[in-house]
Parts: sequence; structure tokens; C-alpha cells
Amino acid sequence: MNENQLRSLFEEVRAGAVDIDSAIHRVRHMPFEDLGFAKVDHHRALRLGMPEVIFAKGKTPEQVVAIAERLLEHAPNVLITRADRDCAALVQKRLECAEYFPLSGIIRFWRDRKPQGKGRIAVVCAGTSDLPVAEEAQLTAETMGNDVDTIHDIGVAGIHRLMQNRERLTEARVVVVCAGMEGALPSAVGGLVSCPVIAVPTSVGYGASFNGLAALLGMLNSCASNVTVVNIDNGFGGGFVASLINRL
Amino acid sequence: MNENQLRSLFEEVRAGAVDIDSAIHRVRHMPFEDLGFAKVDHHRALRLGMPEVIFAKGKTPEQVVAIAERLLEHAPNVLITRADRDCAALVQKRLECAEYFPLSGIIRFWRDRKPQGKGRIAVVCAGTSDLPVAEEAQLTAETMGNDVDTIHDIGVAGIHRLMQNRERLTEARVVVVCAGMEGALPSAVGGLVSCPVIAVPTSVGYGASFNGLAALLGMLNSCASNVTVVNIDNGFGGGFVASLINRL
Amino acid sequence: MNENQLRSLFEEVRAGAVDIDSAIHRVRHMPFEDLGFAKVDHHRALRLGMPEVIFAKGKTPEQVVAIAERLLEHAPNVLITRADRDCAALVQKRLECAEYFPLSGIIRFWRDRKPQGKGRIAVVCAGTSDLPVAEEAQLTAETMGNDVDTIHDIGVAGIHRLMQNRERLTEARVVVVCAGMEGALPSAVGGLVSCPVIAVPTSVGYGASFNGLAALLGMLNSCASNVTVVNIDNGFGGGFVASLINRL
Amino acid sequence: MNENQLRSLFEEVRAGAVDIDSAIHRVRHMPFEDLGFAKVDHHRALRLGMPEVIFAKGKTPEQVVAIAERLLEHAPNVLITRADRDCAALVQKRLECAEYFPLSGIIRFWRDRKPQGKGRIAVVCAGTSDLPVAEEAQLTAETMGNDVDTIHDIGVAGIHRLMQNRERLTEARVVVVCAGMEGALPSAVGGLVSCPVIAVPTSVGYGASFNGLAALLGMLNSCASNVTVVNIDNGFGGGFVASLINRL
Amino acid sequence: MNENQLRSLFEEVRAGAVDIDSAIHRVRHMPFEDLGFAKVDHHRALRLGMPEVIFAKGKTPEQVVAIAERLLEHAPNVLITRADRDCAALVQKRLECAEYFPLSGIIRFWRDRKPQGKGRIAVVCAGTSDLPVAEEAQLTAETMGNDVDTIHDIGVAGIHRLMQNRERLTEARVVVVCAGMEGALPSAVGGLVSCPVIAVPTSVGYGASFNGLAALLGMLNSCASNVTVVNIDNGFGGGFVASLINRL
Amino acid sequence: MNENQLRSLFEEVRAGAVDIDSAIHRVRHMPFEDLGFAKVDHHRALRLGMPEVIFAKGKTPEQVVAIAERLLEHAPNVLITRADRDCAALVQKRLECAEYFPLSGIIRFWRDRKPQGKGRIAVVCAGTSDLPVAEEAQLTAETMGNDVDTIHDIGVAGIHRLMQNRERLTEARVVVVCAGMEGALPSAVGGLVSCPVIAVPTSVGYGASFNGLAALLGMLNSCASNVTVVNIDNGFGGGFVASLINRL
Amino acid sequence: MNENQLRSLFEEVRAGAVDIDSAIHRVRHMPFEDLGFAKVDHHRALRLGMPEVIFAKGKTPEQVVAIAERLLEHAPNVLITRADRDCAALVQKRLECAEYFPLSGIIRFWRDRKPQGKGRIAVVCAGTSDLPVAEEAQLTAETMGNDVDTIHDIGVAGIHRLMQNRERLTEARVVVVCAGMEGALPSAVGGLVSCPVIAVPTSVGYGASFNGLAALLGMLNSCASNVTVVNIDNGFGGGFVASLINRL
Amino acid sequence: MNENQLRSLFEEVRAGAVDIDSAIHRVRHMPFEDLGFAKVDHHRALRLGMPEVIFAKGKTPEQVVAIAERLLEHAPNVLITRADRDCAALVQKRLECAEYFPLSGIIRFWRDRKPQGKGRIAVVCAGTSDLPVAEEAQLTAETMGNDVDTIHDIGVAGIHRLMQNRERLTEARVVVVCAGMEGALPSAVGGLVSCPVIAVPTSVGYGASFNGLAALLGMLNSCASNVTVVNIDNGFGGGFVASLINRL
Repeated sequence: MNENQLRSLFEEVRAGAVDIDSAIHRVRHMPFEDLGFAKVDHHRALRLGMPEVIFAKGKTPEQVVAIAERLLEHAPNVLITRADRDCAALVQKRLECAEYFPLSGIIRFWRDRKPQGKGRIAVVCAGTSDLPVAEEAQLTAETMGNDVDTIHDIGVAGIHRLMQNRERLTEARVVVVCAGMEGALPSAVGGLVSCPVIAVPTSVGYGASFNGLAALLGMLNSCASNVTVVNIDNGFGGGFVASLINRL
Repeated sequence: MNENQLRSLFEEVRAGAVDIDSAIHRVRHMPFEDLGFAKVDHHRALRLGMPEVIFAKGKTPEQVVAIAERLLEHAPNVLITRADRDCAALVQKRLECAEYFPLSGIIRFWRDRKPQGKGRIAVVCAGTSDLPVAEEAQLTAETMGNDVDTIHDIGVAGIHRLMQNRERLTEARVVVVCAGMEGALPSAVGGLVSCPVIAVPTSVGYGASFNGLAALLGMLNSCASNVTVVNIDNGFGGGFVASLINRL
Repeated sequence: MNENQLRSLFEEVRAGAVDIDSAIHRVRHMPFEDLGFAKVDHHRALRLGMPEVIFAKGKTPEQVVAIAERLLEHAPNVLITRADRDCAALVQKRLECAEYFPLSGIIRFWRDRKPQGKGRIAVVCAGTSDLPVAEEAQLTAETMGNDVDTIHDIGVAGIHRLMQNRERLTEARVVVVCAGMEGALPSAVGGLVSCPVIAVPTSVGYGASFNGLAALLGMLNSCASNVTVVNIDNGFGGGFVASLINRL
Repeated sequence: MNENQLRSLFEEVRAGAVDIDSAIHRVRHMPFEDLGFAKVDHHRALRLGMPEVIFAKGKTPEQVVAIAERLLEHAPNVLITRADRDCAALVQKRLECAEYFPLSGIIRFWRDRKPQGKGRIAVVCAGTSDLPVAEEAQLTAETMGNDVDTIHDIGVAGIHRLMQNRERLTEARVVVVCAGMEGALPSAVGGLVSCPVIAVPTSVGYGASFNGLAALLGMLNSCASNVTVVNIDNGFGGGFVASLINRL
Repeated sequence: MNENQLRSLFEEVRAGAVDIDSAIHRVRHMPFEDLGFAKVDHHRALRLGMPEVIFAKGKTPEQVVAIAERLLEHAPNVLITRADRDCAALVQKRLECAEYFPLSGIIRFWRDRKPQGKGRIAVVCAGTSDLPVAEEAQLTAETMGNDVDTIHDIGVAGIHRLMQNRERLTEARVVVVCAGMEGALPSAVGGLVSCPVIAVPTSVGYGASFNGLAALLGMLNSCASNVTVVNIDNGFGGGFVASLINRL
Repeated sequence: MNENQLRSLFEEVRAGAVDIDSAIHRVRHMPFEDLGFAKVDHHRALRLGMPEVIFAKGKTPEQVVAIAERLLEHAPNVLITRADRDCAALVQKRLECAEYFPLSGIIRFWRDRKPQGKGRIAVVCAGTSDLPVAEEAQLTAETMGNDVDTIHDIGVAGIHRLMQNRERLTEARVVVVCAGMEGALPSAVGGLVSCPVIAVPTSVGYGASFNGLAALLGMLNSCASNVTVVNIDNGFGGGFVASLINRL
Repeated sequence: MNENQLRSLFEEVRAGAVDIDSAIHRVRHMPFEDLGFAKVDHHRALRLGMPEVIFAKGKTPEQVVAIAERLLEHAPNVLITRADRDCAALVQKRLECAEYFPLSGIIRFWRDRKPQGKGRIAVVCAGTSDLPVAEEAQLTAETMGNDVDTIHDIGVAGIHRLMQNRERLTEARVVVVCAGMEGALPSAVGGLVSCPVIAVPTSVGYGASFNGLAALLGMLNSCASNVTVVNIDNGFGGGFVASLINRL
Repeated sequence: MNENQLRSLFEEVRAGAVDIDSAIHRVRHMPFEDLGFAKVDHHRALRLGMPEVIFAKGKTPEQVVAIAERLLEHAPNVLITRADRDCAALVQKRLECAEYFPLSGIIRFWRDRKPQGKGRIAVVCAGTSDLPVAEEAQLTAETMGNDVDTIHDIGVAGIHRLMQNRERLTEARVVVVCAGMEGALPSAVGGLVSCPVIAVPTSVGYGASFNGLAALLGMLNSCASNVTVVNIDNGFGGGFVASLINRL
């Protein structure tokens, strides 16, 4: 029952065409969603410039194209994550405006570039192997209308590199830190800045890194109180939350 | 080398008493910390109204009193977390203005109550057993100058309770969600609001909850993109990060 | 010793050809199975319309065909699970009536379509990536003679979608819920219905989902008391138990 | 907005006292819960004879008494699980009709003993150490109006004991199997019966049982297709789901 | 220093050519191995008819051939485990008497077929998927000179199959039981026989079987006291230890 | 149906009082157990001199006494494991002939001391902290009629101690090795002897020993092929299997 | 066979009292240990000033005193680790020269204070809660004859504190770093110094620190190549290895 | 601010062109790194003959060539680890002096062969499957200027092989031990030598070796106090730390 139907019901009640018990019965069983709650949500999302997202892994290139096509009808910006080259080739052949970033596997449609964030977001990574995850965070934040400052390769085993970037870090309104192996960088960055730090553990490492578990546990146990954590390799999540914060 | 020493050096250089090569040599080897960097950090912390925190577990009541005493000299607000009744008794006997919250084990000195946050923080918990952790988050946020709205006992197995609180949730600028067992509440809340959600897994549960591991993993894998996670039972961390965000 | 042999023994005893001590000795050592116990079991299975099942993974297409051929001699309905395209091609070439469902990898021989279940089974999944597992559950339940209602893509991060399907859920006599990532959907569904809920964790996710472990733990710790759990990705098991319950 | 308020609104609309736009506005923002959805749920629960449950662990005896008192006002049957002797003593002193079962730690108020289940539920355990969990399952099922047949100490290492009870097992409409250590009993029972089997892993064991993990994993991997699993030591859950099934 | 050198030393001492202190010095520093200890070990191994073993996985076919060639010079029986078809092809082309068993990946040189065991070894497996591991155990035991009785597909979910084979099991002097999934069969077999049972967990299963961990834990927690366990998929180990026992 | 009933049935058939179809019907449904299968098992156990065992942990002293009393009526030898001092005090007060070994917590009734084993069993432990587990193994083997040689404190970090005991080890027919921490001793012993080695991991250690998991995994991965493993701290199991082997 | 026996044998050979074959036979079977190998080891340990160590946990105070007494007869320095106050009281009452350090639970007999190390060892800890482990490392290194520089409370979340101590760190010949929670400090220290760093994870933390597992994994995955790791809370091991290195 | 800028500043102060407060302000905010701190670190590394290292896994051959080219401009020795044949082919085609070691996947540029270590480093491995890791350790140590003694295939299950190499082991100044499976060799070696032992767990094994976890845990729990541990398969780390120690 949408607003029009509800209006009709009230009109019928007013006109005496429907008695009140029947009206109550009909209201009680209407799916509340049709009252427009969900649509409001939907509109709000669009209004805020949040991109629609497609997780490409496990989908065929054709499926990705089909979903992207539909989303692009009502969303200016669309991100496709974890896309391989075949997928990107088909998307770029079939749809306009698709940029492909092979390092992170992101395909981006970025048609509304209106700034949304109030300050700058720093996206930091510990080593060059963490770059794919950092790029996913950076592109997400960028597409959500943020000024993004990327700082690479400042792992804790070379603290002077971290210290050199201290000023850039303190200028950010929120920092996303991507790190694998021992995952120590968020703690170190968290101690240098006073803003929120989103830690993204990466699966970079081998042996007892257990595909990112070591980094994840390290970040959850950070002695810096301003650190929160998202899933392993979830650069999108890191960039997304940072963007939400930067709009506040 | 602190500021005074640096000043003397410049004066000696100006007076010709020290040649420039020697001056460069002395500057190069000075510990940069003595330039006052750390003090600046320290002052900034105080200026922002962040409370000093003492983790009482594993310390004797006497030790806690001693540390609290020292901190109270230069910090208006001090939090002591995980304090048992013996510890609280001694602290309240020796120091003024100490409130004790036995549920969460927090002792609070709240002398500067100036508001710091721009909006409201909602602190939500799934079941009554999660209350200790939720209270830790709530008191932390409150002491850091926030208007806190606490919403209890709205676990996902009774979704109507969650839906009833929808409006209160959407009015918050940031939401802290504490949940044990399957840890599903942050996902459900995350889907209802468009602000950042800080998920705090609790160790509530038994058997295959593995002391909070199930809740932690659930939250890290949340299908709601606005969720980030802190350590198990880390109500303080949840309240702290929420406060940082609410100041932006 | 089968029934005929037992009959002969009794006849010999009656005729005095075998004395009683020898008869007792022979009965004591007879394999009880030959009394027909197993056959009874076997017949009961067939009588109830339970399909025979072949787990295709790790078998060659030729092996699958050979086993299926034998089973089809005495069972009207046969399911082959986890079959890839090569396997399906050979099965369909060699055997009649084989339907192939590439999403779940099921090959089905459905020759006896007599209804067996008393009510409807709802098969629910959280996201589109959970569809393969949900289809396995759905086809199993269907082949076992049930009216199946499939409801897709109603994850907890979009609760309104779940609420919209409330009525369909409450009309089911038993619900199978397939979900990966945080595995929260069974708790939410469990709170909406009062019938048994069979939770099937899926390996959908990445990083700290640990191939379905996060979802599994979440479901085992469900705060909804009507939830029981089967193995990760075990759509067949979910559909099978739901069918058993729906016959009661 | 409850039914009365909704009725008033319709009456005002019919009387022309409220225009339709205002009526729509008021309906859109009404908390749906107040339509009586939750109450219906609540009533249904009571109507079905499901007991209210209090998890006593981590609550003071006074808290347990207070909650029990409130629940007993509108529920005939109340179960308190994991209660120690102190808790039981206070409950029995303050409230009438409380039975205490020290083995499982259950306190039961069983005032409505109307049968609810259609057949018999068998509650089985592997060893005497599993008895506390089995008793929790048995008392839950009993209080929910079922005829319960308890069969103890029939672990797989003594298969003849299991075989001796074959007939009793096959007479049950649903079987709850509690087992620790290697958790093999549900598979063996599942192979003997054709009804649903609810497996309850227990924390009985030592060393590599890892507090019930070994039994849990064993049950999840059961080669018997009619087995589903609940949390470690969750006898209540096992008895609850069995009761739901037995009502169908 | 080998026996000859030691003999020379004693002769020199007897002849007075070496004084006693020097002799002591030389004995003290001699590598004890050269006294022939290791050779004795080596000879004993051969004398007992234990096969030499090559683990083919991770070696090139050429390497396997080279090692096998060398071993065959002094050992009548050689086993190559985990060999793929390429490896087998080269081995059979280059070396005489090589049998290949593609199911288990074993290549066998069985030139000395003298019986070594005193009784019969039963090698049992729970399901057809466990056959590769069971075959590895069977071939190992056979090659070590044992009479091996193989019993397949008697998993606990079909206990009558197990009971039918009761007599064959009790006739064995030692039983090797291979099982994946829940790994319950060794407990059931252990309860039927009074001889030692060697349990071999297999990696058969999916999801929460965690590549054999579930079966391994189940077997370690067996409630049958006569069960000991070897590594996951270690059919060779199971057959080897059973052979050692059967020689006693 | 026991033997007498079966005899009556045959007599009735012979006498013509029961027709053959009825007789077959009655045999088919008789519980096979009543044919005396279980009793045979039971007698065999006693005949072999295996002790009855009571696991005292989690039982009250009264319960232990009651069970022991019953067992002692038909078993000459009874072992009670994991008994604390209170339990031992009551047992020794109430029952005759009870020896208490406080280190391992074993209470032993050893009334039939007839030798059962053909050779000697060596029970070895790595460090003094492993002694309780080793004593449990030793007493079990001794009570089952074996000549036991105990060798203590020969961990791999002091290999000369191991080498010094080489001869004693090689004289054993089967060796039980108890070790915590890294659990390396069974591999080293396994390389020195050619008989079966039963490895018992102990929970001795701290930190990353994870209560015996490190030792357990080490032993399961032993590069010595004659090693099999029992549960952590399961000295009883080690001694029991060794005794079974020594009877062969 | 010790040196004297060997000497006698040679004398008998020289005298012709024993023929050479018999002599060879006797040498072949002598336990090599008696040649004095072990004694050499023992003496070397003492000569190097390594302390004898007693792990007090799990031993009675009387046992600790007895062992200490024996060791003190031939070793100047003895360490007792993990001793509680009762143990310390008895040790100090019965034995002379015992110092007790309640923080780490170490009792020390330090009678030979001759320096053994060539340079300085730095013992660093991240937070005050890591002090017990750091003290264990410090006292071990000190007692083994080293100049130890202890630096406390320089966790990575306050990098300026670490940087301030840079010079002291670079002056050490080997650094021991004790840290719990995320265990990031060894990486940061490892990047500042060019000497070996021994990382000691501590069990400090809660929730997802899993009793030190997070710190352990972090350290094993350190991106600083000069870091090696010992067991959780193994301050003794850290101090011991550092001392060995400092003697080189 | 680099040295030149600092010099200018002092000159301006001396000339009176900048007042002292401004000078202090400028020094306070200069990035300390530009003072040359990092360069000093860099030079020290080169001066010490430490090789630059490239982790090839996950990089394209072109990327590896590019990085290697740059490093070779200022470093005489460069190691590339985990390089496959394609990578090696391109490196050897494009760059001079590249040796390729296919077993370990190392490419080495070894232009400065000046000895750096004071003694000998022994690199030991337990089985032939551990050779790739051992070779990585050996080549690292060699390239860092050490005399390396490699001892292969001396696993604990054949202790005589270990004992035979005792003398070579005791002649080393530091020992690197690579072992998979149960990882027991470092304990055994640690008991034979009195120098530091670096244990490198390898992922060699199957089943419950869990890709090296069993070996890792075993080594962390070593009862030999002179053992420290690096990450699984981290032969480079083992060789690197051994080299650092050997320079002391």
C-alpha cells in the first residue's frame, strides 16, 4: 500500500464506502515498506552522493554489465570492486565513462563529482604490497566526494618515513590506514593524530600472517584509542566509513 | 635541547661565540622531542577535553589511587575502568568527586562538563547482559562532553523492538552498538541509519561464542558498509571514537 | 540368514531334523542384517519419497553416471549435488530425464512428484551470492515432495526487505535460511516466525569470514531459540531436514 | 498508535475532523509496533504454551527473583536455567511452586501442564557426564507440553546399548542427542531413525575436546542427513526446537 | 672410527705403539656412529622387511626415479606415496616391477613377499571417499608382509553395515580405521573389538570439516580406550604402525 | 529375547504350538542384544584382566565410592583417575585395598596381579612436570598386568640423557612417551626404537603451548613412522593401548 | 664406561688379559655418555656463568627449596622464576642470599657477579603492564653477567617516547622488547637499531588479544628483518638469548 | 630543511637578518628527516654490507627488474627472494651478474664479497623438503659476508645423524635450524650447542601440520633456552639475524 492507496482508503472511509473495521484490517496488514519508508532511504542515499557498489568476484562479466547498466539509470556514480581484466574489458566496451584501475580491480563511473566531504581524508599504507587495498579505499573516498591525500610505504620499521609525514597526517580529518604483516601502522598513526583512524588489515604476508589474521588481531588490540577496524582487505569499507565521517 | 637551549644557541651564533658548523652539529643531534613536540600533544589532549584513563585490572587499589591523584592535578576529567568494589571504596575514600558505577566497574571524576560534541551519540545494546559494556561506552562518551542516548535490549531476534527505536537511532550523529552472542545487531542498525556505526563485540554468550569471537567475526563481516569494529568488551574504545567523530 | 533360511530352520525344527540347541546356535550367529532389517530401512526410505543422493565432487563424470544408473533402477528420484558442467553434459547424454541447475550444480531426476509435505517450506537467502546454496536447499525440498517458497536477498542490513516478507515467512511450516558473511539473518527470521528455522551458513565472504566460519559461529550463537544449524554450504542438509519436519 | 487510536483516526476522517493529508502524515509516522504486532507475537507465544526463560548465570539471586516474579504474572510456565544453589534457595523462598533440579541448574514453574506435542520426544545422552545438558533439554521439552522419553548412557563405543534402544528411538517423533568428547552419537542415532535429530554438543571432555569444539565439529559434519546442531551445552535450545517440531 | 680402526687401535695398544692416554683421547673423540650403530639400525630395518618409502609430492618424476633406483639396490620392497600419473609413467618406464595404484597414488615394488605378521590386519573405511587413504594403509601393511582384510563403506550412520562386519573385525589382530567428516567410526569399531585400533582421520568433507580437523579432534576424543591416532590422511602411518604391532 | 525364550520358541514350533510365520515374526523383532552379545563382551573384558575405570573429575566423593563399590563386586581391579585428596580420603575410608597416588590422582584397587603382558612396557617422560601423566600411564599398564620400566626426564634438549637410556628403550616391546611443551620426544624415541610408540601430549607449558596443543600437533606430525597419538594428558589411554599391544 | 673403566680396558688389552674382539665388543656397547660428554657440557655451562633455573609454578615451596639447595651446591647463581609470595617466604627463610622480586616473581641467588657480556643489553617494554615480563628478562640478563639498560613504557602509540630513547637503543648490542596487545613495538625498535632484537610477546591485553596470541603473531610477521621471537611471557628466554649473543 | 637551509638560517641569525624567535619557530617546524637522519641510516646499512632485498612474489618480472636496477645503483649486493623462472629469466636477460637458485627462488647480485662475520654460521635442515628454506637462509648469510656451513637432513627421528654432526655444530658461532612437520630439531640442536639458535619453521608437512603451524608452535615452546623463532618459511629472516649476530 503506497501513499496513493492509503489516500484512497481514507477517501473511501470519509465517503462511507469502507467501514472502519475493514479500514483497520487493511492498514494492519499493509506492508509498511510501501508507505515509502524504503524509498526515502533510497533517495537519501542518492542525495548524499553515495555510490552504488557491485562486488564483481564470482559474477560473470555479463552479469556485472547487466547490474551496472541498471544502477547507472538512477545513480550518477557506480563502483565495481574486485573486477579482473576480462570483466573490465567487457564493461568498458558496453558502458560509457568506465575507468578501470587494474591494481585494485576497481571500475568506476564517476559522473557526479560534487565535493561532499568537509575536510581531507588521508589514505595511508604500510608497504607497496598494500597498495591494492589502499587504492580501493582511496577511489571509494574520492568517488564519494572527498579530497584524498594518499601516503604510501611508511611502515613502522622505518619510523622516520612516518615522522616525515606527520604534518600531512595531522591535517586530515580522518585517516584510513592499510597494513598487512604485523599490522602495527594504525597504532603508530593513531598516536600521532587526534582524529579517528580506520584500520584496514590486508592479507599481505605469509606463514604466520594467516592471510591477514595477524594484522587484524594487532589492529583490534591497538593501544591507540582512536582506532577502529574493518574486515581484512576491505578497502571499500575503510573509504566508505571515512567518507561518512568526513561529511559530519 | 629545549627551547631555552635553542635560544641560547642562536644567541651564541649571533654573538659569534659559536661558529655555524658547530651549531649545525649540535642541532642535528638534539633529541627532537625536547623541542616540545610531546608537550604540544599533551596540551592538545587536555584542551580537547579528553579524559585521562586508568585501566584498573591488575593494579592494586593503592596504585590506582596514586595514579589518579597525579592525573587529577592537570586533568579535570579522569576515568578508571574495570575497577572492582575494593578499588572503588579506596578511591572514594581518598579522592573527592569520585562516582562509582558498579555495573561497568567505572570510577569517574567529571569536573569539566562543558559540551564538546556537535550532536547526539546513541549507545545501543542487544541484551541486558551487554549492559556493562554499553555503560562503559556511555560514560566515556558522556565524560568527553557528549549528549548520549542509551537504548537497551533491542536484539535482532525481536526486530519490532529495533524498529520502534528507529527514529531515535536516525537522530544520532554516530551510533555505538554493543552485542554479544551472534553479534548481529550492528548490521541491522547499520542498515537503518546512514551515520557511522561503531560495533563493540561483547564476551556475552557461552559455548561456541568463544568469549566474544563469534560476535567479533560477525561484526567484521557486516554487510552494512558503515560499520567499524573495536576489540571485544572495549566499551571505552567505542565511546572514545564516537566522541572523536561527534566533535568533527 | 534371510527370511527363507529362517523359515527352513523352523521347518527343520518342527520336523525334528534339527535339534533345538543347534537351532539356537545358528540363530545366535546369524548376521541380523539378513533378517531384512536393512531392507525395511531401505524400503521405508523409498516409500517416503526421499531421493537418493550422489555427491559429485571428486568423482569422474563416468563414475557419477554409473552410480546414478544403478540408483535409478529402484529409486524414482535422484539428486546429484556439486556437479560441474562436464559432469552434467555426460549425465544428460547418457541418462533420461536429467535436469541440470548450473547455479547450484545440481542434476535432478524427478520422476515421482507426489506431494509429501503437509505445509510450505520457505527457503530464504541473505544475498545474491548465497543463491547457489539456497537453490540446493530448494531443489532438495522440492524433490522430496514439498511446496517451496523462495525468498531472496533479504539480508539484515536492509531490514525493510525482511519486514516486507514477514507474512510469507509466517505462512511457512519450516524455514531454511542461507546466509554468509556475518550470518545474522537466521536470528532475525527466527524472531519473526514461531516455527523451526534451519540455518545454513555459506562460505560467502572474504577475509575474516574464514570461509563461512563467521557465519557458522553467528548462527550457533543465535539469540533466537528456534534456530538449529547445519554445516557450511550444506544446502542439501537444510532442505532435507526441513522436508522431514514438514512431513510430521 | 494502537488499534483504538487508529479507529479514532478513521472516525475523525469519516467525520471530516481530520483531513486526509494529515491522516496520511500521522499513519506514516506511527510506530508500527503500536499496531499490535508485538502483542500478537506475545500472545501467540503464551497461547502455544512456550515457557518464558531466564538465564540465571551472571545475575544476582535478587535479580532472578525480580524477573521471575514479573514473568509469572502473565506466563503460567517459567524456566530459569543455569541457576546455582544460592539462587535456587532464594527463588524457592520467595516464590511458590518452584522446583529445583540441581544437576542441570534448572528452576521450573510448571503451572500449565496441558499437552502440546503430538508425539513423543526422545532425549538421549552419550555418557553420564552429559546428563546435566540432557536434563536441561528434557525439562524444557516437558514444560512445553511434551511426552519425553529419556535414554542415557548409550555412547557409540558400546553400540549394543544403542541397538538395544533402537525401538524406543524409532518411536520418537523427534530426537535430541546430547554428547561430548567425539560427539559421534547423533550420527549413529541419525542412521537408525528417520525423524529429525537435534544434536547438542556438550563441553564434556578434556584436552583436545577444547571445551566442546570437537563434539560441535563432529556433529556439523555428520554423515547422517537428518541431523541439525545447536550451540555447545545448549540443552534448552535442543528441547525448545524439538518441542516446536513436535507441535507440527 | 669404524670397527677396523678400533681394532687397529687396540692392536697398537697391545703392541705398545700407542700409550693408553692417547688411546683414550682417540676413543673419546670418535664419532660414535662409526662404531656401526647406524648400520645395525639400517640392517635391522631391511631384515624386518620394512619397505623404504619415498614421498613423491613436491619431487619431479626424475628425482623420484633416481631415489627409487638407489633404494632398490639394497631394499627388496619400496613404496612411493602420493605419486601422480606423470610420475608413475616415468617410474614404470624406467624401473622394473613397479605397480601403480592411481586411487591412492602409490607405486609399489614388492619383491620380497615373505609373511611377517602373525595375524590379520583389518583396514576399514567409513565412506567411498576415504578409499584413497585406506588403500595407502592397505598397501603399506600388505607390503610389510601382512594378511590384510579390507572392509569399505561402513560409516556410523548405517550401523547395520558395521554390525554385519562385526565378526571380520573381531578376527583382526589390529584394525586401521580411516574416516573423514565427523570421524566417528574408530569409536564405534573400538567398542566392538578388543584389539588396538589405529585411527586415520581423512580430509574428506567440506565446510566445518576444516580439511580433516573435525575428524582428527573426534578421534583424539574417542570414548573407546583402545584408539590411537595418526596425522590426517596418513594412511601410510596407519598401515606402518599396524604392521609393527602385528609382528609382536 | 534371551536364550531361554528362544529355546521356548523353538520348542513351541517343534510342538506345533506356534506356526512358522508367527515364529519368524517374533524372531525378526527380537532385540538382538538379548541373545547375550553384550554379556559376552562384558565377560571378555573381565577375562582379559582389563581394569574398570572411573573418571572422578566432576563427581562427588560419594558418587565415586558408590560406583567403585558396584564395580568391585565383579571386577578384581579398578582404577579411579583424576581424584583429588578429598575423594581419595573417602574412598580409602569406605573401601578396602585402595592405594592413592596423589601425583597423578589415581586410586587403585589391584587385587588380581597376574601378569598379562608378554614383554616390557617403557613409560618415558620428557620433564619432571610430565610426571603426573606418566604415572597415570604407568599405573594403568601395571594394573593391566605389565612389567613397566619408567624413564624420566629425558627431553630432547639434553639428548645425551636420551642416548644413555637407549638400551632400556630398545628392550621394551612398546613405549609410551609423555611430553608437553614442543612435544618432540616421541619423534626422537621413535627414531631409536623399532617398536610401536604411543605419544601422550601433556598440557605442560605456557603461552603458545596452548594447553598442550603445540605438543599434540608436534606428535601428530612426527617424522618417525612408528608414532601414534592419544588425547592431551590422556596417560590412561596411553597405558591402556600399550597394554593391549603387549598382550599380542 | 667412564674414563677409568676405559683405561682399565686398554691396560687389560696391553697386558693381553683381554683379546681384541672382546675389547671391541665392550666398547661398542658402552653408553657414550659415560665417556664424559655430558660432564663437559655441564662444566661448560658453569664456566660460562649461566644460572641454573627453577620454574616454580606447580611446585610446592618445599620442593623449590629442595631443588634450589641442591643446585646451589655447585652453581654460584640460581634463578627461580614464577614464584609466589609463599614460595619466596620459605626460600628466604631456609636459604641465604635469596633476593625476591615480587613483580616478576623471581627469586635470585647472585653470588658470582663477574661481567660476562661485551656490551650493553637494552630491555624495553611497551606499557607498564608488561613490566613483570621485562623484569624477568632484565634479571636473567643481569645475573648472566650483563650490563642492562631498562627502558619502560615506550609503546608505539606514543612514538615520541620511542624517539626520545633512540640513542640509548642504538647504544645496545642487543635489545629485548616485551610487548602485549598488538605487539608492534619490536618492529618499531627493529627499524631504529641495527643489532638483533629479541621480541617477547606478553599476555597483556583482553578480548581479541587471546592471551598474547595477537602480540605473538604480530612479532612473527614483523617487517623489521632483525627481529626474532620467543614464547609468550618468556622473559627468561629473552634475557637468556640476549646474554648468549652479548658474549659473542 | 636540509643542512644547507639550516646553514643559511644560522647565517641570517648571525647577520641579524632573522631574529631569534623567528629562527626558533622555523627550526621547531622543520621535518627532522631532512636533517639527514635517514640518510645516515641508509649509509650505515650499506657500510655494513647488508644486501637490499626484493620480495618478488606478487610483482611482475618487469617490476622486479625495475626495482633491482635502481637498488643496484647504490648497493653492491642485492637479493631477490621467491622469484619464479619467468622472473629469473627476465632479470638475467636485463641485468648483469644475476645468479638464479631455482630451489629457493633466489636471484642474487653478489658484487661485494668482503667477509663481515667473525665466525661460522651453521645452516641446518631436518629433511630434504626443507632445503628451499635452508637455501634461502644460506644464501642470505653468505651474501652478508659469512662463512656458512650447511648440514642437511639430520631430523630428530634419526638422532645418530644429528650426533655425527655434533662437532660441526659446536664449531658454529650461531646456528640456523630449518624444520617442518613437528619442528623438533631446534630443541635437539639447542641442547647440543651453547650458542644462539635461530629456528625457522617451514610449511613442509600435510594434514595437522597446518602449513607450518605445528612446527612454529613446537619451536616457540622449545625446552632449549637458546632458541628464538622467525616466521614460517622465513629463511631470509633466519639468515639475516644470524648474520647480525655473527658480526658482533
